[in-house]
Amino acid sequence: MNEIKIFSPATVANVACGFDVLGFCLDSVGDEMVIRKVEKKGIKITKIKGFDLPFETELNVAGVSALAMYEVINPDCGFEIDIYKKIKPGSGIGSSAASAAGSVFGMNELLGRPFNKTELTQFATKGEALANGCEVADNVAALFGGFTLVKSIQPLEVLQIPSPNNLYATIIHPQIEIKTSESRAILPTQVKLSDAITQMANLGSLVHSLHTNNYKLMQKSLHDVIIEPHRSKLIPHYYEVKNAALNEGALGSGISGSGPSVFSLCEGIETANKVRDAISKVYSKTRIEFDIHVSKINTEGIKIL
Amino acid sequence: MNEIKIFSPATVANVACGFDVLGFCLDSVGDEMVIRKVEKKGIKITKIKGFDLPFETELNVAGVSALAMYEVINPDCGFEIDIYKKIKPGSGIGSSAASAAGSVFGMNELLGRPFNKTELTQFATKGEALANGCEVADNVAALFGGFTLVKSIQPLEVLQIPSPNNLYATIIHPQIEIKTSESRAILPTQVKLSDAITQMANLGSLVHSLHTNNYKLMQKSLHDVIIEPHRSKLIPHYYEVKNAALNEGALGSGISGSGPSVFSLCEGIETANKVRDAISKVYSKTRIEFDIHVSKINTEGIKIL
Repeated sequence: MNEIKIFSPATVANVACGFDVLGFCLDSVGDEMVIRKVEKKGIKITKIKGFDLPFETELNVAGVSALAMYEVINPDCGFEIDIYKKIKPGSGIGSSAASAAGSVFGMNELLGRPFNKTELTQFATKGEALANGCEVADNVAALFGGFTLVKSIQPLEVLQIPSPNNLYATIIHPQIEIKTSESRAILPTQVKLSDAITQMANLGSLVHSLHTNNYKLMQKSLHDVIIEPHRSKLIPHYYEVKNAALNEGALGSGISGSGPSVFSLCEGIETANKVRDAISKVYSKTRIEFDIHVSKINTEGIKIL
Repeated sequence: MNEIKIFSPATVANVACGFDVLGFCLDSVGDEMVIRKVEKKGIKITKIKGFDLPFETELNVAGVSALAMYEVINPDCGFEIDIYKKIKPGSGIGSSAASAAGSVFGMNELLGRPFNKTELTQFATKGEALANGCEVADNVAALFGGFTLVKSIQPLEVLQIPSPNNLYATIIHPQIEIKTSESRAILPTQVKLSDAITQMANLGSLVHSLHTNNYKLMQKSLHDVIIEPHRSKLIPHYYEVKNAALNEGALGSGISGSGPSVFSLCEGIETANKVRDAISKVYSKTRIEFDIHVSKINTEGIKIL
């Protein structure tokens, strides 16, 4: 096999009480990539469709992660990467993570799978770092499917948490720009001990609810008392969207990544669709353009097409 | 049935990364209590053996919790309570919680179980409040067996987390006095966001490890970066004890409750016994007297004898 076509999905990181720790993987929105083994050594980005992104390998997240792997394995061949970008950069649903993980996933397949998921995640975070300015693993980790908990970054340890079958996400992406620097600067460096305890109780309960398929407990656990009060200020109509979702029966809503996308988790596709309609209404009244997606939780992660 | 004899075990709260949230129940150390239905209305403490505690119902934690239940149900009888106290007050292994929960558990049995575990925990926290100055539910919750996570206090919601069969605890109680006021005053009111994230990752992982019987992950998760650096100062030779336990293969060690007891969790009784011997050595070199207990995790909680 000298060529592989893959689907690299969008992901949601910072799941309410799981800031910097928890992520999950989407099914119905993602990039497509073709990775090709070629004689000429090196990594070359040969095609980019959908969005305007750099072709220079060292400036492209898919290129940087590919190089990180390439330098470790130093194979007797090179790779070309075609990117059919469908996840908008800067949307907060892991656009750069999809590119960064997609290239190394594809290369790994073509090379006969020399690396495991954790090693691939490590290469991919090198690409992510180009986009984010620091190595964060939560979006990348989620690309391996379902719910993932980043136990630690050094050394990288990612846990796959089971989740109920009938869990869906509705994601709205209001097309505004939030600068990464701004979304980081708005966060406090210190938090109240009492808030940290509340958040820990929620996170522990959320993990327990995922293990026990307990939607009711999930609903009680999807609360963020630490990050949301700050970052929500950067997203127009945030609480209107959230309340509309909760009113339609969403289990919980929160900021996806560092925004501006807002996710809602729902039991069943009917509720997820109702939530879609309700939150569409909120943004339809504004002049802000938006995309909206309904997706089952993708337990498989990146897949070969 | 007019009389019941029960065993009300010791418990460990604030399990490393689970400050104010997580607790577990011990098997081999606990109080015995006899609760008796009598004609004369009211609650009377009729016997206290082992330690010098107040006989006045309103000043005794077992009395206060019993009164809280009694006032709700207003039965056509009264209750007498005999307390055979074996858990030293102030040891940090839930001495007051055992008394507070024991009386209401026994009364509930004699009345035909009108209340569920959550309701009993609520009554018992009234007794705990007398000892602690505030309503904390983690020790009381743990009295219903196994590992428990206090999801919230208002309204009270306690989750029972499964745990592996072969899990043991070794507890050392150095006989020094730590004033509750001091152990509270030493805590910061603010914590670093980065520390809160580390602690959350650890707690989430610990819950996952308990669900998946993953001892190795449990070992990596039993770390406390928020409370231990402060409260450990109140316990002489704390890090010597901890290191001795970890060297013998303990999965993790931490301060039990607000101290001075120190717990270690171990896979298997052999390791738990080795840990007991190693930490005994540490305190044997000092002039501080100590008790030491090895116990299986008690999944049953309070039991009828």
